[in-house]
Amino acid sequence: MTRSAQIRVAVSTVIFTLRLPDEGSPVLALPLVRRTREPFAGRWALPGGWLSASESPVDAAARTLAETSGLSPTYLEQLYAFGAVDRSPTRVVSIVYWALLRQDDVQAQSAAHRASGHAPENVEWFDVDALPDLAFDHLDIVEYALWRLRNKIGYSRVAHGFLPQEFTLAELREAYEAILGRHLDPANFRRQVETSGSLTATDRFRTGSHRPARLYRHNTDVELADRGPLDPEETSIR
Amino acid sequence: MTRSAQIRVAVSTVIFTLRLPDEGSPVLALPLVRRTREPFAGRWALPGGWLSASESPVDAAARTLAETSGLSPTYLEQLYAFGAVDRSPTRVVSIVYWALLRQDDVQAQSAAHRASGHAPENVEWFDVDALPDLAFDHLDIVEYALWRLRNKIGYSRVAHGFLPQEFTLAELREAYEAILGRHLDPANFRRQVETSGSLTATDRFRTGSHRPARLYRHNTDVELADRGPLDPEETSIR
Repeated sequence: MTRSAQIRVAVSTVIFTLRLPDEGSPVLALPLVRRTREPFAGRWALPGGWLSASESPVDAAARTLAETSGLSPTYLEQLYAFGAVDRSPTRVVSIVYWALLRQDDVQAQSAAHRASGHAPENVEWFDVDALPDLAFDHLDIVEYALWRLRNKIGYSRVAHGFLPQEFTLAELREAYEAILGRHLDPANFRRQVETSGSLTATDRFRTGSHRPARLYRHNTDVELADRGPLDPEETSIR
Repeated sequence: MTRSAQIRVAVSTVIFTLRLPDEGSPVLALPLVRRTREPFAGRWALPGGWLSASESPVDAAARTLAETSGLSPTYLEQLYAFGAVDRSPTRVVSIVYWALLRQDDVQAQSAAHRASGHAPENVEWFDVDALPDLAFDHLDIVEYALWRLRNKIGYSRVAHGFLPQEFTLAELREAYEAILGRHLDPANFRRQVETSGSLTATDRFRTGSHRPARLYRHNTDVELADRGPLDPEETSIR
């Protein structure tokens, strides 16, 4: 037996959505699962579970996410492998994934689970600025995921990951403001988006109580996540 | 016993240097270790070993790198956790780190090992465009590390990670050309570097057979790697 046999491998997933309330600004939120066992029984934790011998880590992340939260994102990206010695009462290395999920997909998936009578229990969505006490080092993990989201997210990715297929620049800017946690100048924002090449203007407009606003789509030529030459089994959900 | 007890955790490190030959262009190179045991006995592999129960993955990477290659970089950065089911005859998840090491540090460390009579065996440096057959999925890992290096490396980091403290813009450009594997226009390169703010011009010049060339330093205000809010034990070598 090698020394590493005392170490177990888990997977967890940080999956962000942007709540779009009927009134007011959008809010960044993520699902947590209330633990039913020790350690940290009763505390909230990221969706996840053990890596099994017959599946890749990304498959395990997708499986445990579906089992605990009922959610199925179209892709997961590896965030980081957390392995500090004292991060859990027993020695656990967690390979953590992250994803963005559109609010309409969250609602469709939740509705499907309720209709089937198999809605997952012990799951709740929390706004990222109102998180409960978390188990293990999961608050550190969420903070790292937020840092990565804030630092590395481009217009196209926000648009594709969080917004409906068509959106106004004001909606995109409000999404960005929710992620970054600060106000952005509308004129500067419009200029940056228009020069980025990551969005495509449609010839449709949103009409309503305000003056008509042009609708945009994300440019599918811009890749959502460039995974480089990684083997598909290391990156894809099958 | 949980299912994950059948899975072992290893660490490996991809550590690049830039060979600066007396004549000709610099060449990107990395050290490999010839395996003395099955599986893949006799094949070359990345420096690494098993994660032990009492150390963090980054500490294990630094320890196994020192044990197998004698090298001690000042920092290691997590590259990716590789976990495809069939990447090894037994089930192994490898947390892979990467680093840059200056050629003068490589030579100083090698000289110190020879002087102490404890030079590591079975280690050789290979140019990245002339790699031997590698064990496991280590060629895929090296290709991913190269992709990351080519995509995410900034001027300051190349300068700090690969070059001596002071260097000319021509030396920096040649280093960049070795990494990217293509020719760069000197005038464009100079403009980009000067506007990037990542280098500081000194008032010293390199003189010799050519006309004097100004020496630059990397700007220490620009962080080499922004690790975000990660816990020190997840990122630092102690």
